[in-house]
Amino acid sequence: MIETMDQGTSVAVNVISGQRGPVEHVRRQQILQAANEHFRLYGYKKTTLADIAKSIHLSTPYLYKFFNSKQAIGEAICSTCLNATLAEIEEMIAATPSPVERLRRIFIGIGKNGWRLLNEQRKMHDIVAASFEERWSSLDRFNEGVFLIVRRIVVQGRESGDFERKTPLEETCRAIARTTQLFFHPVLLEQAGEIRDEDVLAVANMVVRSLTA
Amino acid sequence: MIETMDQGTSVAVNVISGQRGPVEHVRRQQILQAANEHFRLYGYKKTTLADIAKSIHLSTPYLYKFFNSKQAIGEAICSTCLNATLAEIEEMIAATPSPVERLRRIFIGIGKNGWRLLNEQRKMHDIVAASFEERWSSLDRFNEGVFLIVRRIVVQGRESGDFERKTPLEETCRAIARTTQLFFHPVLLEQAGEIRDEDVLAVANMVVRSLTA
Repeated sequence: MIETMDQGTSVAVNVISGQRGPVEHVRRQQILQAANEHFRLYGYKKTTLADIAKSIHLSTPYLYKFFNSKQAIGEAICSTCLNATLAEIEEMIAATPSPVERLRRIFIGIGKNGWRLLNEQRKMHDIVAASFEERWSSLDRFNEGVFLIVRRIVVQGRESGDFERKTPLEETCRAIARTTQLFFHPVLLEQAGEIRDEDVLAVANMVVRSLTA
Repeated sequence: MIETMDQGTSVAVNVISGQRGPVEHVRRQQILQAANEHFRLYGYKKTTLADIAKSIHLSTPYLYKFFNSKQAIGEAICSTCLNATLAEIEEMIAATPSPVERLRRIFIGIGKNGWRLLNEQRKMHDIVAASFEERWSSLDRFNEGVFLIVRRIVVQGRESGDFERKTPLEETCRAIARTTQLFFHPVLLEQAGEIRDEDVLAVANMVVRSLTA
């Protein structure tokens, strides 16, 4: 038991500091790939660490050296997915200089990615849903990422004179970042049946108007 | 089977048109009360129609005359709860003449009610959660109720000159009503851990600013 805990702790360090050498990096990637495949075929909830280890002919204790829980693997995969969403939003933003249009694109990008996950990558959607349900750190980092993008655009718009400067910056940006959840939260998307572009734009426009007061 | 279906249909009519006589009304209330008690003690999901019938010494087929499914009972109870939320919001609004303050109170009232359900009436919260999950008509009516309150206040603010008049009224009000979900959706509340008053106010203020542009 103590041994497992120790392994867990050392792995946790490893996860945070990244790989210690090329061999370990390769092994880590191999595990993530096998896990990804398993999750895709059988779903996150139905897969065990032992299933993943077995599929690449590793012992479960050996796999523990790299990830101390299924959640740790889920978080790594979830992070990759959520980082791709942030990257796509950054790309959409980079294509226009207007702070107003950039703010709109944050909402459009979020909605597009959430919707695509639900409809085209359902198993990945389920992993993201688990990250909301169990409050994984990968989700905190994503939320912080959205907030920082919002903050950057609002600051830019304040400097350019497009946005008002009276309201407290942090509070305003937290409110905007929170509002994007309407179009990304897995349960909301599942229950919505559909998210129409005009609904996303209506909320985005409301947010834009709140800044141009 | 056909008989059950027929019963179901006649009950559906009964549910919509209300009670046909005082005796039936009393019986209906008795069933709802028994169901409420059962849901409160054992939860909505674990209760069956037969449990409810048994607890008040009725046969299940007889109970079917009044409600054709557990969901129909759940919807009736859910409606009572959601109508109480709308009534409380109306009361909070009536206490101030300012459209700006009224709009804030919609958000505060929604957040307060959602939070109270989660923390003080957990079994009722679960019924409301089921109404979101299974898209009951009681939820549609509530959403429409919120929208109509929002619309009324926005129209009032436009007439008094407190709010702008350029943006399309319906689109604007739908976006605002949708945003209130951030503080009422059962799953969002469960996952939030806490909803701070300042978070609700920050979003409410954002919405207010969007109207005073």
